[in-house]
Amino acid sequence: MQKLLARVAQVNSLLCVGLDPTGPDAEVTRRLPEIIAQTAPFAAAFKPNLAFFLSRENGVQLLRQVVRSVPPEVPVILDGKFGDIANTAEHYARFAYDVVGADAVTVNPYMGDDAIVPFARPDKFVFALAKTSNQPAHSLQDQRLQTGEPLSDFTARVIAGLDAEHGNIGLVAGATDAAALGRLRQLCPQQWFLVPGVGAQGGDLAAVLAAGLRADGSGLLINASRSIWQAADAGAAARALMQQINEHRAVAA
Amino acid sequence: MQKLLARVAQVNSLLCVGLDPTGPDAEVTRRLPEIIAQTAPFAAAFKPNLAFFLSRENGVQLLRQVVRSVPPEVPVILDGKFGDIANTAEHYARFAYDVVGADAVTVNPYMGDDAIVPFARPDKFVFALAKTSNQPAHSLQDQRLQTGEPLSDFTARVIAGLDAEHGNIGLVAGATDAAALGRLRQLCPQQWFLVPGVGAQGGDLAAVLAAGLRADGSGLLINASRSIWQAADAGAAARALMQQINEHRAVAA
Repeated sequence: MQKLLARVAQVNSLLCVGLDPTGPDAEVTRRLPEIIAQTAPFAAAFKPNLAFFLSRENGVQLLRQVVRSVPPEVPVILDGKFGDIANTAEHYARFAYDVVGADAVTVNPYMGDDAIVPFARPDKFVFALAKTSNQPAHSLQDQRLQTGEPLSDFTARVIAGLDAEHGNIGLVAGATDAAALGRLRQLCPQQWFLVPGVGAQGGDLAAVLAAGLRADGSGLLINASRSIWQAADAGAAARALMQQINEHRAVAA
Repeated sequence: MQKLLARVAQVNSLLCVGLDPTGPDAEVTRRLPEIIAQTAPFAAAFKPNLAFFLSRENGVQLLRQVVRSVPPEVPVILDGKFGDIANTAEHYARFAYDVVGADAVTVNPYMGDDAIVPFARPDKFVFALAKTSNQPAHSLQDQRLQTGEPLSDFTARVIAGLDAEHGNIGLVAGATDAAALGRLRQLCPQQWFLVPGVGAQGGDLAAVLAAGLRADGSGLLINASRSIWQAADAGAAARALMQQINEHRAVAA
């Protein structure tokens, strides 16, 4: 948490650079450190996506190398969407923090709070899924409860309660539904939101920032993965996106 | 699916042997093949738990060795509770099926049907979480929807619909709530259920079988992990549990 706040302040950035490497192993092994070096000056955090590493030969080894190549002052969020009973979650936490060396993780709340809490070590940070950026035909998150609220809002309130207790639990809110994101911000005025779905998935950056920024102009991490990975100049793409975000922050403030 | 049905018929067993190895690496590397050899004659399937491998040095390599040491006629369910957008889910499917060599996976439905379908390759099988065996303070699965049904039942109906389309999607239903399991069986009369929570977690085997067996005395895979791993004689423990299950099947039929 301290590390994230310090980094956001240091570079005045809310940009999270997603690392979802596609392509042959040799190309990926060469390009990953380049992209990290080029984008680090503009990155509040890096977010490697576990699936894109596990699907490779020696993927865990590559992931560990990647995390070691990130400058120590930049937090790394391991996007594993872990979700299992407490006894098993402890093992995933060991993997993410002790084996891989990440500072934070994403987790899936379907199994309840006891699947989230094992990740909330005092020096780590957890982002639990509330409203994701995909649009399934059969959505659980959009199901309305007897109170009238959608499941995603209930989830957000559970997360806010856990954050009140532990101080290091935020949520994931997709950029593709700015209205839902605004509702989540009303339910969770203080929490950090990790926001995927800007760029390749088509989320509207201006609408997301208007709906999701805290009163202090912060509290969001805007993730971009494919749009940076596929840019001819990854550093320039990251800088441009960081500046775009900051312009909206200035307007909102 | 064919492989699972053939195996269940071949050994007349509904027992799934969970592989959640704890202890030092050297001991685990020695004991895993022993336990597999001792319990295979009584196993309808093996279920390695991904977390217990990832938390070790060279865990993926050990997991691959374990899968290779399972007799080829016994299906392997990789318990990873994967859940991510379709593009990412494709990478987890590659990991589970192509890198690890599993026949089936567990998946988390919080992100909807498009997070499940990428795992439903024609020659593979998917178990999606409906009602899990833990009892969190804040449960999403027990939340009642406007229809009055709990979220777990809605999830089960989504899974049954996907199974009708794809033919290889079952669900996870914990043994710790036999009443919920019975409701799920009414909603999903034909689907295969993977049932954790007997043994160390305290589920009542007789109640689970009475509530969950299909009319044909099948359709359940009863998982046991810690109770077999910790037994002095793993083979005898597996055989006893298989026989116990079969006695209840005979009574139910």
